[in-house]
Amino acid sequence: MVLSDFKVIAPITVRWGDMDSYGHVNNGVFFTYFEEARLKYFLALDLYKNAGHPDHRPALASVTINFRKQLHWPADLEVGIRATKIGNSSFSLEHVVFRAGLEEVIADGTSVVVLVDYAIGKAISLPDALRDAIRSLDGV
Amino acid sequence: MVLSDFKVIAPITVRWGDMDSYGHVNNGVFFTYFEEARLKYFLALDLYKNAGHPDHRPALASVTINFRKQLHWPADLEVGIRATKIGNSSFSLEHVVFRAGLEEVIADGTSVVVLVDYAIGKAISLPDALRDAIRSLDGV
Amino acid sequence: MVLSDFKVIAPITVRWGDMDSYGHVNNGVFFTYFEEARLKYFLALDLYKNAGHPDHRPALASVTINFRKQLHWPADLEVGIRATKIGNSSFSLEHVVFRAGLEEVIADGTSVVVLVDYAIGKAISLPDALRDAIRSLDGV
Amino acid sequence: MVLSDFKVIAPITVRWGDMDSYGHVNNGVFFTYFEEARLKYFLALDLYKNAGHPDHRPALASVTINFRKQLHWPADLEVGIRATKIGNSSFSLEHVVFRAGLEEVIADGTSVVVLVDYAIGKAISLPDALRDAIRSLDGV
Repeated sequence: MVLSDFKVIAPITVRWGDMDSYGHVNNGVFFTYFEEARLKYFLALDLYKNAGHPDHRPALASVTINFRKQLHWPADLEVGIRATKIGNSSFSLEHVVFRAGLEEVIADGTSVVVLVDYAIGKAISLPDALRDAIRSLDGV
Repeated sequence: MVLSDFKVIAPITVRWGDMDSYGHVNNGVFFTYFEEARLKYFLALDLYKNAGHPDHRPALASVTINFRKQLHWPADLEVGIRATKIGNSSFSLEHVVFRAGLEEVIADGTSVVVLVDYAIGKAISLPDALRDAIRSLDGV
Repeated sequence: MVLSDFKVIAPITVRWGDMDSYGHVNNGVFFTYFEEARLKYFLALDLYKNAGHPDHRPALASVTINFRKQLHWPADLEVGIRATKIGNSSFSLEHVVFRAGLEEVIADGTSVVVLVDYAIGKAISLPDALRDAIRSLDGV
Repeated sequence: MVLSDFKVIAPITVRWGDMDSYGHVNNGVFFTYFEEARLKYFLALDLYKNAGHPDHRPALASVTINFRKQLHWPADLEVGIRATKIGNSSFSLEHVVFRAGLEEVIADGTSVVVLVDYAIGKAISLPDALRDAIRSLDGV
């Protein structure tokens, strides 16, 4: 797993305030790094348009994170993100946090995104336009 | 899975700032709720004393979260936490976020905690005192 | 300045994650404590209704914070808040963070809230209903 | 007040999670932007060395922030910071948050930093080495 495996990459600059009282970047802040990459991925997909309706918007169903290395301020990161699976009403993403310029993995994990019709509060099938956008971006 | 299944429970009051621009509690903030419960669990175990040495301290190896319901401010929560497994150098925890006073599960998930000797930067076997503390608390 | 000077009080439980790598509650987190009190004050004023129009909503113009004591997890706080001045298009608030059950001031400060017509992006005069609500709450 | 007035500038990339449920960057997050600039200023001063003793460390006494413009993700910022006054045991800083590449001020404010001897918990006089470092950096 190397950075060049990813078409969408979010650069992140660690903030001093990302560290906690253990003196390293708080584990939960990696969630924010994943989130930043996911939002950039949504832009790359043109997700809000390809969802087909203003009420049809993504919701996060689950996330997993593995912590590989401790991280301290100051540091620059690159978060690679790509789709690994397209389901009926959801798709799965892989996130990898690299130290910028190095193939050192600080953390990695997954998230599952569901498309929800917020007018009725239910998951809906992914429209073809969205499936095509994911496929053409990541070949999944 | 009900709140009375848990010996250690962390009460959490949702803050307005926990919400994000989707107008609900940010998914990543649940990580903080899990963390708060985990720290209380460490206190209940007297973990820092039972680890046996000041250099032997816990590190989070991984976390998983499932998002079951949307959550909005204001709200009071109770986060139940318990051990589900004791390994050689790690133990596994289950976290469940309930709406206070109700058996409504907002989110649940797991975390794996490793005991690390920070002087050498390596995981070490859990000492018997710590195993006993986990067993006597949660019967695992 | 004692807690009983305040009609509106927001209870806050410090979270472990509120601490930073200096090992105490991060100065910026007090901003969040002030914010929580301010939002409760808005509810006490029925501000969104008394603003008179859905496009007329509050915006924060400025804030000041004085840090009096260091603070560590775990701790319970009570944040007192009250109006000190009503201007043409703004009102001023005083915030005091007390340790719960003690008259120990951890931090204090001020904020200035402006009423904005978001349709035109301009500050507007406070309607009489809002002035009356502030006056009847805090006698200012 | 333009960016070229500042010798120390902290670049900040707004994160999606910096926004709150009003759909703009949360006011309190500007505190984090100020903090990031302040920590870079401390590095530029070699403050920890020039404080003269490991127990002599900075503490934030107060902060003020004025909010000039609304801010939304995505955006790149540059936070200029400089000393405006050297007192006996404290120094004052001015912070200005610019939109990167533009002379548009999003927020500005001040902070007062005190040097504290943490062994006795008291403010102490700024040593000459630290005064000289501030003077040679900002000519104050």
